[in-house]
Amino acid sequence: MKMDQEIYFTDKTERWGKFELCLPGPSDGNPYTDVIFAAKFACEHRVIQVDGYYDGEGRYFVRFMPDQIGTWHFETVSNVKELTGVSGVFQCTEPGPVNRGPVKVDQRFHFAYADGTPFYPFGTTSYVWNHQDEPLQELTLQSLAESGAFNKIRMCVFPKHYDYNLKEPALFPFDGNIETGFHYTVFNPAYWRHLEQRIENLQALGIEADLILFHPYDRWGFSTMSPETDDFYLKYAIARLSAYRNIWWSLANEYDLMKDKSTSDWDRFFRIIQEKDPYQHLRSIHNWHHPGIHYRSNAHWYDHGKPWVTHASIQHHDLYFVQEWREQYGKPIVVDECRYEGNLNHGWGNITAERMVECYWEGLVRGGYVTHGETYLHDEEIIWWSHGGKLHGESPTRILFLRQIAEEGPPLNPVQADFSWDAPTGGVDGEYYLVYFGSSRPAYRILPLPEGTDFTIELIDTWEMTITPLPGQFTGACRVELPGKPYQALRIKAIHQ
Amino acid sequence: MKMDQEIYFTDKTERWGKFELCLPGPSDGNPYTDVIFAAKFACEHRVIQVDGYYDGEGRYFVRFMPDQIGTWHFETVSNVKELTGVSGVFQCTEPGPVNRGPVKVDQRFHFAYADGTPFYPFGTTSYVWNHQDEPLQELTLQSLAESGAFNKIRMCVFPKHYDYNLKEPALFPFDGNIETGFHYTVFNPAYWRHLEQRIENLQALGIEADLILFHPYDRWGFSTMSPETDDFYLKYAIARLSAYRNIWWSLANEYDLMKDKSTSDWDRFFRIIQEKDPYQHLRSIHNWHHPGIHYRSNAHWYDHGKPWVTHASIQHHDLYFVQEWREQYGKPIVVDECRYEGNLNHGWGNITAERMVECYWEGLVRGGYVTHGETYLHDEEIIWWSHGGKLHGESPTRILFLRQIAEEGPPLNPVQADFSWDAPTGGVDGEYYLVYFGSSRPAYRILPLPEGTDFTIELIDTWEMTITPLPGQFTGACRVELPGKPYQALRIKAIHQ
Repeated sequence: MKMDQEIYFTDKTERWGKFELCLPGPSDGNPYTDVIFAAKFACEHRVIQVDGYYDGEGRYFVRFMPDQIGTWHFETVSNVKELTGVSGVFQCTEPGPVNRGPVKVDQRFHFAYADGTPFYPFGTTSYVWNHQDEPLQELTLQSLAESGAFNKIRMCVFPKHYDYNLKEPALFPFDGNIETGFHYTVFNPAYWRHLEQRIENLQALGIEADLILFHPYDRWGFSTMSPETDDFYLKYAIARLSAYRNIWWSLANEYDLMKDKSTSDWDRFFRIIQEKDPYQHLRSIHNWHHPGIHYRSNAHWYDHGKPWVTHASIQHHDLYFVQEWREQYGKPIVVDECRYEGNLNHGWGNITAERMVECYWEGLVRGGYVTHGETYLHDEEIIWWSHGGKLHGESPTRILFLRQIAEEGPPLNPVQADFSWDAPTGGVDGEYYLVYFGSSRPAYRILPLPEGTDFTIELIDTWEMTITPLPGQFTGACRVELPGKPYQALRIKAIHQ
Repeated sequence: MKMDQEIYFTDKTERWGKFELCLPGPSDGNPYTDVIFAAKFACEHRVIQVDGYYDGEGRYFVRFMPDQIGTWHFETVSNVKELTGVSGVFQCTEPGPVNRGPVKVDQRFHFAYADGTPFYPFGTTSYVWNHQDEPLQELTLQSLAESGAFNKIRMCVFPKHYDYNLKEPALFPFDGNIETGFHYTVFNPAYWRHLEQRIENLQALGIEADLILFHPYDRWGFSTMSPETDDFYLKYAIARLSAYRNIWWSLANEYDLMKDKSTSDWDRFFRIIQEKDPYQHLRSIHNWHHPGIHYRSNAHWYDHGKPWVTHASIQHHDLYFVQEWREQYGKPIVVDECRYEGNLNHGWGNITAERMVECYWEGLVRGGYVTHGETYLHDEEIIWWSHGGKLHGESPTRILFLRQIAEEGPPLNPVQADFSWDAPTGGVDGEYYLVYFGSSRPAYRILPLPEGTDFTIELIDTWEMTITPLPGQFTGACRVELPGKPYQALRIKAIHQ
């Protein structure tokens, strides 16, 4: 930090690290609404203007995530004299070994870190873990670290009101509380600092924060704020959070339950983020789906094909449709809710671990990605899906097993070779096939391998987590014996001489 | 039998039993094509004309299934003098205890025997059990008798050519064989007498013969006969078989794989049966479904709404759609193929017993009916689905358990009470609910029972086959504890004082 009286800023940051400048300024009136504060960052020919934010107590911040190694210059811009024209220089250095930058869309249907390393989303869901008491939050982080299965978590800015979610949180994004009401022009910096701490904790664990900006499960009024307040809140969140490389913007959980908002509101939110986030973090919106479990038609879904949507974040129980959605939207498909492992009274929260793992495999081999959730009844109503805490289920270990297999192979796309409709298969034709039999259980199979290439085949028991090489090499139409039990897969790799 | 020289006929038959008249007649030329032979049957004010058939060796038969107790008169009609004007009288008596008459559509979506007893189809599939060697056929009958699970079997007139089905059958419906070819104007009475014997064997076991008249799996030419031959064959089959009360007419298995036939052909076949079968046995046609497992659109299916179709005989793996099909067709829905319990290489034949039973339950509580099939690999390639033999699977016992539950209750229709989308429920509102949780496994549930009526509730473990009454009585919104494991159901009955 360089300190100049009360001014300080980061003088050296990693590529994709967080630069921070702090200036003293006015605290009278309402600085949140009255003060314009931003900074221009320049490196070589590029100039990027970034909004700052007021953090209370007369302190103004601007954050920046440099994407280029070298010397960066900055200079502030404001409608307040003392916040104007403050300038300086900082160095952007090589990233450390665990810093691969923000995640971007890659190869149309997939993701990669900014450094080019493929990123396969293996997400979980814990909507308001960050709103629980502090020991529980620490336990959640510990569980994430111990599991190692997950590299993305869906979580909300606003607290949640729903079955099993009736406690009052300690902090709110706005000034106020449920008794006195909220001042929608005054933020609560303590809330945001805490949220940032949690985002940093996740970053240290290599976990992307798929941050849900709006959701319908509300008793405080956050789901029915005015359009002006919505926009005001969004811009503040972007100014504070976009310099964290592990941020993804999820506009909403189950946006279609928020009857107060229209498609044009969601369009506007997307465009605000698109305009204000200098780093173009991933942007998505997540549906609820209406008429029964089999609601196939996505005619009423927000159109994930719109240009500001980076990937489709879908709620659907049936991973079969991943291929259709790929074709329709031409973007990565992340099925962020497909029912959760557990035993809840609710239908969306009472599938078996076997089914959860099946969803993960099926979604992956069909060329998409799937997100985990866990909903076991608990004496103290600490349920991973909302509260975090401990993972009790049997699926995370199997999800980790799958993640390791995924990360050893290429991104999966549908293949030309027809492994038959009961064995969805992803891969790269002629090179790599991951064939998943799910609950189908043939005792043998004739595989449609290409002629002229030799392949190795491994039998994977996705539940028992074993990988067994089949003896010999394979080419063309070839028969393999299978154990005739559910949850088997084959990994087939071309042998290169 | 009354014998008058070489003329004989049944002088007494049960209601829905089989009257038979046999006359000697010409055997020169081609009696199958040259001779018209029929008889009029009269009882009180009714006169019913029924086609007879040539059985070879100069013998002409006419069969009749009287539906009315009393004295019936008959008189023959022919273009041959000696077969014309032969008349007589026979008595139709009370049916015996196991004879409830043919099955008809009842209450729009269901079935009942002609005596009014509800008939819940619990079908199985053994396409060409009747084309196997005789000991194997006897074993199949023994297996059906021992299982007790099934009251309907899908079986083919023509032999089948397919994987595991390459043996040449002993008998063909037409004169000839694969080497010499077939005479499509000459039937093989030995074939038909054998088929009739098997239909009678099934009748004795209380099993309906869902007789498949055409199918695509063919190396002999029976799937590509001329329209004239098709019609000629159909009329002969109707003349011979329609007097068996346990006959159902299934126009085809997987008609849409028979590229040689058009919708107008199928229309014509239906109309021929409608016109020629005096008893209006059930008529259906069974689809194959094209683009993958999830082919939902039935836009290209033969329209089961046509007036000559009595019920929809559907192939689909997903029983969810039963309710939609009920609404669309307004007829009973019988899902005659939903994949088979087994471990075959083919996707349609490698589901678990658990899944087979799940299909049965789901189809039933959604207001339809489901048909069993079994496809376990076998050293001698004797696979129940085609050949009969022994039942090896774990589903038939559970299907019998369900059948007993079904037969104790009313026909199931969708109910107004909303037991939530993960628990399909059939019954009679306010009276009876059968709630099926399938692979969902809530640890408890709030049930939406009507106020003002007391109910008993039984917990059914559909896999373990246990029925456990829950203590007490229930009314209104009430909580029940559940075991939190898959395959549970609730049977809820109103208590009548």
